[in-house]
Amino acid sequence: MISVEQHLSRIMGTVKVIRPFELGVLDAQGCVLAEDITARGSLPGFTNSAMDGYAVHAADVASATPEDPVVLPVVNDIAAGNTHALSLAQGQTMRIMTGAPMPRGADAVVPVEATDGGVVRVQVRQRSVVGQHVREAGEDVEAGDVVLRRGTLLGPGQIALLAAAGIARLKVVPRPRVVVLSTGDELVQVGLTPGFGQIVDSNSVMISAAVTAVGATPFRVGGVKDDARELMDTLEGQLVRADAIITTGGVSMGAFDTVKEVLSRVGTVQFDKVAMRPGMPQGFGLLGDEQVPVFTLPGNPVSALVSFHVFVAPALRAMAGRPEPSYPPGYVPAVASEPFTSVPGKMEFLRVVLDGDSARLAGGQGSHMLGALAAADALAVIPEDVTSVQAGDAIECLPLLGREGL
Amino acid sequence: MISVEQHLSRIMGTVKVIRPFELGVLDAQGCVLAEDITARGSLPGFTNSAMDGYAVHAADVASATPEDPVVLPVVNDIAAGNTHALSLAQGQTMRIMTGAPMPRGADAVVPVEATDGGVVRVQVRQRSVVGQHVREAGEDVEAGDVVLRRGTLLGPGQIALLAAAGIARLKVVPRPRVVVLSTGDELVQVGLTPGFGQIVDSNSVMISAAVTAVGATPFRVGGVKDDARELMDTLEGQLVRADAIITTGGVSMGAFDTVKEVLSRVGTVQFDKVAMRPGMPQGFGLLGDEQVPVFTLPGNPVSALVSFHVFVAPALRAMAGRPEPSYPPGYVPAVASEPFTSVPGKMEFLRVVLDGDSARLAGGQGSHMLGALAAADALAVIPEDVTSVQAGDAIECLPLLGREGL
Repeated sequence: MISVEQHLSRIMGTVKVIRPFELGVLDAQGCVLAEDITARGSLPGFTNSAMDGYAVHAADVASATPEDPVVLPVVNDIAAGNTHALSLAQGQTMRIMTGAPMPRGADAVVPVEATDGGVVRVQVRQRSVVGQHVREAGEDVEAGDVVLRRGTLLGPGQIALLAAAGIARLKVVPRPRVVVLSTGDELVQVGLTPGFGQIVDSNSVMISAAVTAVGATPFRVGGVKDDARELMDTLEGQLVRADAIITTGGVSMGAFDTVKEVLSRVGTVQFDKVAMRPGMPQGFGLLGDEQVPVFTLPGNPVSALVSFHVFVAPALRAMAGRPEPSYPPGYVPAVASEPFTSVPGKMEFLRVVLDGDSARLAGGQGSHMLGALAAADALAVIPEDVTSVQAGDAIECLPLLGREGL
Repeated sequence: MISVEQHLSRIMGTVKVIRPFELGVLDAQGCVLAEDITARGSLPGFTNSAMDGYAVHAADVASATPEDPVVLPVVNDIAAGNTHALSLAQGQTMRIMTGAPMPRGADAVVPVEATDGGVVRVQVRQRSVVGQHVREAGEDVEAGDVVLRRGTLLGPGQIALLAAAGIARLKVVPRPRVVVLSTGDELVQVGLTPGFGQIVDSNSVMISAAVTAVGATPFRVGGVKDDARELMDTLEGQLVRADAIITTGGVSMGAFDTVKEVLSRVGTVQFDKVAMRPGMPQGFGLLGDEQVPVFTLPGNPVSALVSFHVFVAPALRAMAGRPEPSYPPGYVPAVASEPFTSVPGKMEFLRVVLDGDSARLAGGQGSHMLGALAAADALAVIPEDVTSVQAGDAIECLPLLGREGL
């Protein structure tokens, strides 16, 4: 029996960041940069107005007050998108819009609110200083600057900066492609009615959804029979497109545990009992020429989803180039609102409903109980050496993926 | 000038939950249920074994101990997926795997670990009680039970429960389809090099990414010229597929603010100055026969993204049927690590970098400054009546979408 921490350490010490791939900037959302990015152009690319108003020589309006406005002739209008370089003579002004290029010679913008808004002649009612309401070319970003560093997660603001700085394609760590495969003669496809002794293959659906929720791309293979040949052929066929493979089922103490039987013979997959409940039988290793990580999760649905959160999610995040999480990753503090019991010597993951930071059991805690799982917001994590938790005790919880507001 | 709260209240009081739509269970991830769901079958669907072991009559092994085991003949093997109903006579046992149907007459399972693992005769070394390691049909869910309520957000566990309970299609609130449209003669498409006076249309890219990050589906229309006819035609053409429309640009005090010009004449769109920085000029209303909500955001990229977080994201969540967030929604506490200043009478949204809960300014705070925006993790929200924050003061932050680990 190994500890949760030992099994996770082995996984995190084995998985590698996926080979970078060039993507268009529009497709890179949620990916991590695999290179430093240098701006092709400056931002702003040209000196422009920060306000709707009037471009002036600041010296011309130095004496302007509401009582004693300065009157200037308006000699032109400059809209955003005006691509002509204009010049402003002293003693004149041009109407200018936000984002429009400043005319040569002008060194300040008087906001329209500080004028009478005239279009032929304008009364300027406020003094201005050099540079006021002017955005200088390059004041945000200079061409040649490194604008984003390798390792940056690309969200809306980062993608906007890349697009604005002239970057159309870039090297990122792609989203992991994850083959999800459930095993068992008892499985029938979603939508079919199971007969006596059969169950719907809900595991591949659930784990695929969890893969999506963690930001990776699932390929669901559905139920594979408990047949060594069929399983091996399926695995070999899927290896070409997989950055990782997740199986559920077939790893326990049974006489027909095909995953364990097949994978014990190939690759580096190692099967362990892990001191946790649910989720004790776990396997992990590398498969094929490309050394694809394979996670073999137990077949009970609650065990499978707990295992995904505890072992697979951190591994997929690391493969996607996210900064390695501290251990334990992503835990949030909570308070038990009722007593919990836990087996000694195992880390227990109880399904709980959170009401603010108050945690209560979500119902039946059997590892086959989907009803309670679906009612839960989080897993309460009870350490190996704790066997009972009292109402009011501080506990740690691992939020369930896909249950928080997007 | 209206307050942020007034503008948000008007928006939240106007938008409606999108009309429910029937989806396959595999496509419903991230959606909210629009109906109560009743289980078609029970879970488990048949009484089955919770362990790999031996099905027994508990009475037969009542005296078993390690020193004085009970020996039983093994008359059959029952694998998961066995679809035959078997019967177990007293004084006999069958090997049984996890998930396999219990034979009639058997009332307990002895785990393989409590035996010698025999396949012809087995030594049982531990007593068992009725029901031990047996999962009763319907103990998780009974056919006809309401398993999930209208309003539930569907994550991996919920989808697994639906699939297992025989639900293939279900009514959900679909993800909002959001048309994203940026306006301005100065815009060039991403990937093209802007000339003098031009900029790359990074706003439509950024806002589309933000729409995705909030769980909705963007349709990016890119740059529309500052031409009333073109804008109106584009809007009318897009209305058919839009649950909402977001525009950027053209809503300020300028002489060529086409969005304001066009939308002031149709629908119920109302333009306001909102007491916030950045993001003062805001518009919102309903457009077309279908009363599609239209958000007209300012064109400065920082203003646009701040406005999205403050006004659009809560509205899209409400349209998707998520429980209405409290106001202010989604704020997290932090501590200023340096002094901040803020204009009086406006709610200020400063771009900050978070290091744990310690917040420092992300750089230049101009509303055109994408560099600082892209360096930021969150917006520090400084209320209208606060003009200075000291190092060590508690503040509230709105995390930027798409910057947290998926």
